[in-house]
Amino acid sequence: MPETVEIGLGREARRGYHLDEIALVPTRRTRGSSVVSTSWQIDAHTFELPLVAAPSDAVVSPSTALEIEALGGLAVLNGEGLWARYEDPAEAFAQVCQDGGCSTAQLQRIYSQPVSDELLAQRIADLRASGVRVAVRLSPQHTAALSPAVLKAGADILVIQGTIISAEHVASAHAADEALNLKTFIAELDIPVIVGGCTNYQTALHLMRTGAAGVIVGYGAYSGSTTHAALGIEVPMATAIADAAAARRSYLDETGGRYVHLIAYGDIANGGDIAKALVCGADAVMLGEPLAAAAEAPGQGYYWDATASHPRLPRSELIDLGVAAEDRPQLREVLLGPTADASGERNLFGAVARVMGKCGYSSVKEFQKAELIVSSAR
Amino acid sequence: MPETVEIGLGREARRGYHLDEIALVPTRRTRGSSVVSTSWQIDAHTFELPLVAAPSDAVVSPSTALEIEALGGLAVLNGEGLWARYEDPAEAFAQVCQDGGCSTAQLQRIYSQPVSDELLAQRIADLRASGVRVAVRLSPQHTAALSPAVLKAGADILVIQGTIISAEHVASAHAADEALNLKTFIAELDIPVIVGGCTNYQTALHLMRTGAAGVIVGYGAYSGSTTHAALGIEVPMATAIADAAAARRSYLDETGGRYVHLIAYGDIANGGDIAKALVCGADAVMLGEPLAAAAEAPGQGYYWDATASHPRLPRSELIDLGVAAEDRPQLREVLLGPTADASGERNLFGAVARVMGKCGYSSVKEFQKAELIVSSAR
Amino acid sequence: MPETVEIGLGREARRGYHLDEIALVPTRRTRGSSVVSTSWQIDAHTFELPLVAAPSDAVVSPSTALEIEALGGLAVLNGEGLWARYEDPAEAFAQVCQDGGCSTAQLQRIYSQPVSDELLAQRIADLRASGVRVAVRLSPQHTAALSPAVLKAGADILVIQGTIISAEHVASAHAADEALNLKTFIAELDIPVIVGGCTNYQTALHLMRTGAAGVIVGYGAYSGSTTHAALGIEVPMATAIADAAAARRSYLDETGGRYVHLIAYGDIANGGDIAKALVCGADAVMLGEPLAAAAEAPGQGYYWDATASHPRLPRSELIDLGVAAEDRPQLREVLLGPTADASGERNLFGAVARVMGKCGYSSVKEFQKAELIVSSAR
Amino acid sequence: MPETVEIGLGREARRGYHLDEIALVPTRRTRGSSVVSTSWQIDAHTFELPLVAAPSDAVVSPSTALEIEALGGLAVLNGEGLWARYEDPAEAFAQVCQDGGCSTAQLQRIYSQPVSDELLAQRIADLRASGVRVAVRLSPQHTAALSPAVLKAGADILVIQGTIISAEHVASAHAADEALNLKTFIAELDIPVIVGGCTNYQTALHLMRTGAAGVIVGYGAYSGSTTHAALGIEVPMATAIADAAAARRSYLDETGGRYVHLIAYGDIANGGDIAKALVCGADAVMLGEPLAAAAEAPGQGYYWDATASHPRLPRSELIDLGVAAEDRPQLREVLLGPTADASGERNLFGAVARVMGKCGYSSVKEFQKAELIVSSAR
Repeated sequence: MPETVEIGLGREARRGYHLDEIALVPTRRTRGSSVVSTSWQIDAHTFELPLVAAPSDAVVSPSTALEIEALGGLAVLNGEGLWARYEDPAEAFAQVCQDGGCSTAQLQRIYSQPVSDELLAQRIADLRASGVRVAVRLSPQHTAALSPAVLKAGADILVIQGTIISAEHVASAHAADEALNLKTFIAELDIPVIVGGCTNYQTALHLMRTGAAGVIVGYGAYSGSTTHAALGIEVPMATAIADAAAARRSYLDETGGRYVHLIAYGDIANGGDIAKALVCGADAVMLGEPLAAAAEAPGQGYYWDATASHPRLPRSELIDLGVAAEDRPQLREVLLGPTADASGERNLFGAVARVMGKCGYSSVKEFQKAELIVSSAR
Repeated sequence: MPETVEIGLGREARRGYHLDEIALVPTRRTRGSSVVSTSWQIDAHTFELPLVAAPSDAVVSPSTALEIEALGGLAVLNGEGLWARYEDPAEAFAQVCQDGGCSTAQLQRIYSQPVSDELLAQRIADLRASGVRVAVRLSPQHTAALSPAVLKAGADILVIQGTIISAEHVASAHAADEALNLKTFIAELDIPVIVGGCTNYQTALHLMRTGAAGVIVGYGAYSGSTTHAALGIEVPMATAIADAAAARRSYLDETGGRYVHLIAYGDIANGGDIAKALVCGADAVMLGEPLAAAAEAPGQGYYWDATASHPRLPRSELIDLGVAAEDRPQLREVLLGPTADASGERNLFGAVARVMGKCGYSSVKEFQKAELIVSSAR
Repeated sequence: MPETVEIGLGREARRGYHLDEIALVPTRRTRGSSVVSTSWQIDAHTFELPLVAAPSDAVVSPSTALEIEALGGLAVLNGEGLWARYEDPAEAFAQVCQDGGCSTAQLQRIYSQPVSDELLAQRIADLRASGVRVAVRLSPQHTAALSPAVLKAGADILVIQGTIISAEHVASAHAADEALNLKTFIAELDIPVIVGGCTNYQTALHLMRTGAAGVIVGYGAYSGSTTHAALGIEVPMATAIADAAAARRSYLDETGGRYVHLIAYGDIANGGDIAKALVCGADAVMLGEPLAAAAEAPGQGYYWDATASHPRLPRSELIDLGVAAEDRPQLREVLLGPTADASGERNLFGAVARVMGKCGYSSVKEFQKAELIVSSAR
Repeated sequence: MPETVEIGLGREARRGYHLDEIALVPTRRTRGSSVVSTSWQIDAHTFELPLVAAPSDAVVSPSTALEIEALGGLAVLNGEGLWARYEDPAEAFAQVCQDGGCSTAQLQRIYSQPVSDELLAQRIADLRASGVRVAVRLSPQHTAALSPAVLKAGADILVIQGTIISAEHVASAHAADEALNLKTFIAELDIPVIVGGCTNYQTALHLMRTGAAGVIVGYGAYSGSTTHAALGIEVPMATAIADAAAARRSYLDETGGRYVHLIAYGDIANGGDIAKALVCGADAVMLGEPLAAAAEAPGQGYYWDATASHPRLPRSELIDLGVAAEDRPQLREVLLGPTADASGERNLFGAVARVMGKCGYSSVKEFQKAELIVSSAR
């Protein structure tokens, strides 16, 4: 039964746990890394790593998408980012990544340039031409308008992602129920759809019922996020992932075996966080900030996501990652190592393989059974 | 049943929760902001925002009262503040808001000037003349002496407010019971009365029984407060509000339907805190420090409240809000946005409307049913 | 039943609470300060304040003992401190309180000067001559040797105090049981004895059975204490006081009404801490560090206690209180106010009277029934 | 029953406790230090102190091994450290301990020099010639290759230690089960074997069943460790030790009386931590960082362990202990005092004897019964 507390007379609340409040407990047996596999398969697509690169302009560009695929992960291009707003986004990137990083007001202005579905289609076509699997993120608000161009251009995977979405959105007093739209929309597509973010059992279950191949848990909280301050929403990720895993079990039962993938997004900074997210029940992790420090990242040492440029209520800040240009590691070092950095922020998936071995498991799915301990964060 | 722990053999204590220990959990469905209303009605008065500006000289002056009303809130003038002590308070404000802020000793001296009921009546008359609804705060100790002038001058709402009050005050061994006085006093008035602050179920219930239209929960703890250090009193606001909401339910039952409004005051710094206070059961929030940073605020970049100038035992300190004069936002930006500040401290009620939508509720009263989660504060 | 947790398989531990984890909850009614009394009576001695000044050389000298008594408290002279080691301790004080404070090694050297029972007797005689009630502290180890001189010189109250003591000390394999000695020793005295410190129910009960008039709870933890680091001992004071209060109830029952006073010592920095210690069950508080900042204090802006000069294993450090000489308040301001300092560290007992009133109680004994709330420390 | 929480629907986790979340509670009686013994016996070896010096190159060299034995403890030489890689390791030490400490990349390079079993045998022979008991640590991976030379050279105790090991290691899909190897390997030896680290009941029990004389609990977490960040593994030591003590009881029962010693390693910084580890059930502690500050330590003011030089995934950093060369204490002061340092980091075992006395116990085995309290760390 979920742990609840009474915060006041007659008012109950769940107790949620953050990833940094839990840790893994190795037990029984250990395995060498050579008998461990971190591979991940969603729909017809197989990846060596359980990794989705977040649709942040600071991380995924057409060129890093190629490289992330080559290293074993899936990169998601933001269909409403700078590459879809500017024919040559170099100048926009230069402004964002100016010395010290641009202000929120500047970011709002730079992102006020309209999205062009022609430009977006061109980016997708270029990516396809280079032979990479193309995943594009659209916001729920603009999916209806932009998806035709995206689909026609040949995207392989569509990611419909807002900070917090539901399967049942009431846009206005008179509009038809968008939940039905989402379900209908996905049913008519030939490619797999990933939807999110969500934060609890019920929303996860309803999103699974839309026919999505994957559900994103969390809204990508990073060190610059201010969503808790602005909106009062916070997602203790260990609890949110475990709840969504419970929804996956319920949905498996009600469908007689349809498995929806969970992709954990937010409060994941290092290899340990990835491992813990997987053990809580995630099939893969979506990473933004941890990849932005790489030398190849378009963010040039800065990280921001779509919430940072919101025109009326920005809910995160562009942050300086604090790594000098000459010290930025290659993406390969960040993902696969080897590394001479002991922070836990590099060789992320080498670390995951190692801890899977220390816990005695040989696949990500088995690893979800590992033991957890709760302790006060150090 | 309330959560209690045994702190020692035979000694029990409730477990209280602060607003920053809880967070909202969006679930089921979402709504667009256009189908959300934040309006609030107390007695015959309707406001677009569930906002009461605190009776701090740093926030409410005759001119900001006009502006706060225009933006949709209710402003409370401190009937024992500088405007009631000085014919022209400009010099006093200049001393308080001197470079770096005045010392507690200076504050004590400035506030040692006696309150004039004539001056107070004049302020009220001027406000009425400008067409604004006039709310005035008096301390319980001076209500008997000052209220005749306040009422005669035509105040619309009377706020009887001390840091912590009760419905039953024993002033001396021989005095009559003031609880009866408060009840009698309110019964004889033609205008609605708001009383407080209180911190628990029982006091809230007793204050409701005085006939008050609204009860204030909390004593306005702000970043300069030292009440916990000085007196050992601390109000975990989530618990205090939820307990007072339980008292409201009890009182609704015993009166067959009289609804007393709860106004949360203290430890509210941003839009997220406001949302959480409403979900815990508040009908509106009283804001001091969050409004003091506005360009129009009389505090000129500083905030203090009545406890800061106490002549024998000051229990808070005047604080420098740390915003340069040229960076101070307009009150409109603070309350309604838009903003290019991602701290969560601006566009406060735009944020509330947005999170109400993300939780799927269309009115403040419904929003009180939203789900909460407890997690360790980040 | 005490709250226990299982820290590992088959290993249980009590959950203890610190004073800063709890807070007072005003409720029901309030009282004006004029109908509140903070007075305290132990044995035949009555004091206006529930205050014992700690036997630290930084706080109690013959001259401050006079002043503390005049202000309403009881001062305890350290019978093994500098006044008993040096005929003219001025030079020793000058070395201890040199600019920046002396080192632990210097402190060890200064306190290596032997205690003289003649000097000690002289100090007591001088104090008696000035008309003050004389309380002297001796360590358990030296009580046998030094108490004859102390008693002969006419001390009014004897304080037998080590950091942690028990009623049953085994000094060596062959020595007689000192527990009997302590009981026998006290039985033969004509003056009241206060003993301590202790940290739990059982030790408190056994110390009460020695015939002591008062028992000290805690070992005087202050901001320079390192006992937890050095020995692994820590006293969550709220729990320790409440447990000792349970022992007092047991002892009242087994003796048919003998009331032993509890004196809380440690982790008390301000008026709020004092109030909370009383509500947990203390009859009075022993204060060291909070008094050392006074202008009259012999510590001249520094604080240290007997554990800081231990010759082999010092367990605290002399600390600089960080108050410039010209800013040091008078003892009267520290204890009784008024003050223009909002830190909670001045007007300590004015604050206690005020919060007793806010909780509706008129005596310290009644105040022990006030409501408590547990919340995470801010 | 172990304390478990549900972190999400259907997902449980143990609650673990760190040493700094617990404290000792003196009770009943006290003892003088002269009637307390801290001695420890494992197999045929008796030591005055329950101390094992960790196999870190920063702590144990052939010369400090002599001194640690003389002071009453057991020193473990790292059989894969610099002394086994360099004929004259002085230059390697000079590089590691260069001003400011070397980088992780440099450490990786310095430790890339191969281990020589001849050099290792020579070190052991030299130590034996000086009359000291010789303990050598090998990693599980290299035990098979290096142990013949170690045994032939005459080591008295073999320590098989990795960060986290199990009794059942699967190295590759086709390899035979190493668990059998470990059991067989130990059965054939004539000298006692200590194995570890482990973190829970089950692994501890299985390691006991290999025939080891001692089991190490923990992986030596120190202030430079990043294992939690890198791998998501963290060991709340109080819980891990108590669980291993439960395994010891189970194993005593199933073997009819074979007692396996527990050696706690990690998160132990001062005398209080040692005392708490013993009370949780350890028979001795393994100390690295606390000894590295000594004047004699080969680390010259720096500390690192084997995880810091891992070639692909370093999981700790070499740290500067921050003690100037002229301020480094003698090993004797660190272990036995006296000291003029009040940090709790010196006179470690004098402190243990003192707190054993304050809790009323005369031997380490009895001390394991002392009372514990859980409180929030200060």
